[in-house]
Amino acid sequence: MKKLLFVYLLLISLFVVYVYNHQTENAVTREWSESDLKGSMEETYVMVTFQVGIDYWKRALKGFEDAAEALNVSVEYRGATQYDVNEEITVLEQVIARNPAGIAVSTMDPEKLNPVIDKAVDAGIPVVLFDANAPDSKAYSFLGTDNYKAGVEAAHKMAELLNEKGRVGVITQPNQLNHQERTRGFKDTIFMEYPDMEVVTVKDGRGDPVLSRRAAEEMMAEHSNLEGIFATEANGGVGVGQAVVANDFQESIKIISFDTDKGTLDMIEDGTISATIAQGTWEMGYWSLQFLFHLNHDIVEQVDKRSPLPKSVDTGVTIVTKENVDSYYPQ
Amino acid sequence: MKKLLFVYLLLISLFVVYVYNHQTENAVTREWSESDLKGSMEETYVMVTFQVGIDYWKRALKGFEDAAEALNVSVEYRGATQYDVNEEITVLEQVIARNPAGIAVSTMDPEKLNPVIDKAVDAGIPVVLFDANAPDSKAYSFLGTDNYKAGVEAAHKMAELLNEKGRVGVITQPNQLNHQERTRGFKDTIFMEYPDMEVVTVKDGRGDPVLSRRAAEEMMAEHSNLEGIFATEANGGVGVGQAVVANDFQESIKIISFDTDKGTLDMIEDGTISATIAQGTWEMGYWSLQFLFHLNHDIVEQVDKRSPLPKSVDTGVTIVTKENVDSYYPQ
Repeated sequence: MKKLLFVYLLLISLFVVYVYNHQTENAVTREWSESDLKGSMEETYVMVTFQVGIDYWKRALKGFEDAAEALNVSVEYRGATQYDVNEEITVLEQVIARNPAGIAVSTMDPEKLNPVIDKAVDAGIPVVLFDANAPDSKAYSFLGTDNYKAGVEAAHKMAELLNEKGRVGVITQPNQLNHQERTRGFKDTIFMEYPDMEVVTVKDGRGDPVLSRRAAEEMMAEHSNLEGIFATEANGGVGVGQAVVANDFQESIKIISFDTDKGTLDMIEDGTISATIAQGTWEMGYWSLQFLFHLNHDIVEQVDKRSPLPKSVDTGVTIVTKENVDSYYPQ
Repeated sequence: MKKLLFVYLLLISLFVVYVYNHQTENAVTREWSESDLKGSMEETYVMVTFQVGIDYWKRALKGFEDAAEALNVSVEYRGATQYDVNEEITVLEQVIARNPAGIAVSTMDPEKLNPVIDKAVDAGIPVVLFDANAPDSKAYSFLGTDNYKAGVEAAHKMAELLNEKGRVGVITQPNQLNHQERTRGFKDTIFMEYPDMEVVTVKDGRGDPVLSRRAAEEMMAEHSNLEGIFATEANGGVGVGQAVVANDFQESIKIISFDTDKGTLDMIEDGTISATIAQGTWEMGYWSLQFLFHLNHDIVEQVDKRSPLPKSVDTGVTIVTKENVDSYYPQ
């Protein structure tokens, strides 16, 4: 009799636990669905770039992953291994075939990817572009650096380094729009805001350290009193650094470069390069995923079926010098 | 004996429920704190504008409220009742004194509010600016319309209305930067992309319907073959509409206006105005709150203590015509 009672007791306890358990689970589920900004791990968003694996994408991917953690969704990274537009199109086709929750693309070409981007959008897959835009595609938003403003920032930093006085040069890639804009922002600002400074020379470094070094040496030969050089991309900056070191001009010529690859950071560490312009790549990745999530979840009902996203986002730049260079090395 | 056993049974059951309850509560708490994007209702974010209550802010506030719902936080709306910069400063001082979780401000003046904005930031209160910027303040981000691009969109729409052919005029406020940019985007686009179109006249409407009507009538007298007028703000658009109706030019002159107040929408409904440029005010409000929430919660650890926010956001525009005008009336 006592044993039987004990069994009853056990069964009743288990039942109570079961009922309670069940109710609590329901409560939890209900609470979670109230939180609009929580997805599911089955929901996979994909980042697609060209030249997979280069340092430049690492912080963008970190931002994408950080947003995935905050939103409780999954992410993947795919891309073309080469600097090859057809390979990037193929990769994008493969990604679309798997019907992901959304795609963030950095386009290698401002037009050639439009058909495949539009195909994704037409199939109901949210697409945003980051770092490099394809303005005539159907992608919902673009997140990247305003290159003109980045050039403006570089000019202000150069003025600070030279006490607002002196002659400076620019090493750039004159045939690429983003480099044209960096150069224009730099030149306009020196011209309009620093009357005792002058941009005396602009040369083509072709994005190559050897050619940029040669261009910098020509500059130094042609302008004996040159006091600063702004390189609009990282390979050029390293070439300019080598030219200045080889010709023993470290004391007289200040260099400002662009981006934060290891070669550039090392030259900031040793004082060859005074400053570099760091793009908001983490911000590009983080807000790309936030935007894709918002499109995928229809979180808000907009008038006239408008997209709830901003059209274009300037992720901004920061200036890296010897003081803060440590935190820019990949961890 | 049986009664005693029953009491035991009851006590044990209650204890099991209690233990289970306790564990589950912990589990729930842990799960919830994993959801980074869920705040608390005690967390109050404040939107501050000038000229409270005008239609223009309604959709921005709706966006702010929609984001508050998604993030589970509270919002308030405060502002100067007049177009008075000192009143806006006073309101902002009062808001700061209550130490809110964050403030989204539309500045009446690009400089005069800087000290009070900086005071909030220095006190650790996140501040973002929307609609109108104060670029030299310490606010973390700006969300608004790229006015040059809005002018570009207006030009494309005008070209479509006129089959890419004809003479057009602009009624604007030549002393205000945002209106200068709208005019410049419009003129540049007509000049560069539509060889059979020409901007033959630009006049000052002073943001007033009566003066804008007069300016439009002068235009029509001076240019008998005028086929289109772009008004860069809403009062001007209504004035132009009245001029065209009064002089019976509805068939020959197409009007494009700006913003979506009731007067403008009514004139689109009756066909006087062909199109108007709607700003992304909802987007300004929604993403302002998202940005403030991210600052307040330190959701992500950025290198070098950078803000995780984009520097500047172009919320974009959409074109409102007779086809979609209904959804732009306040609901």
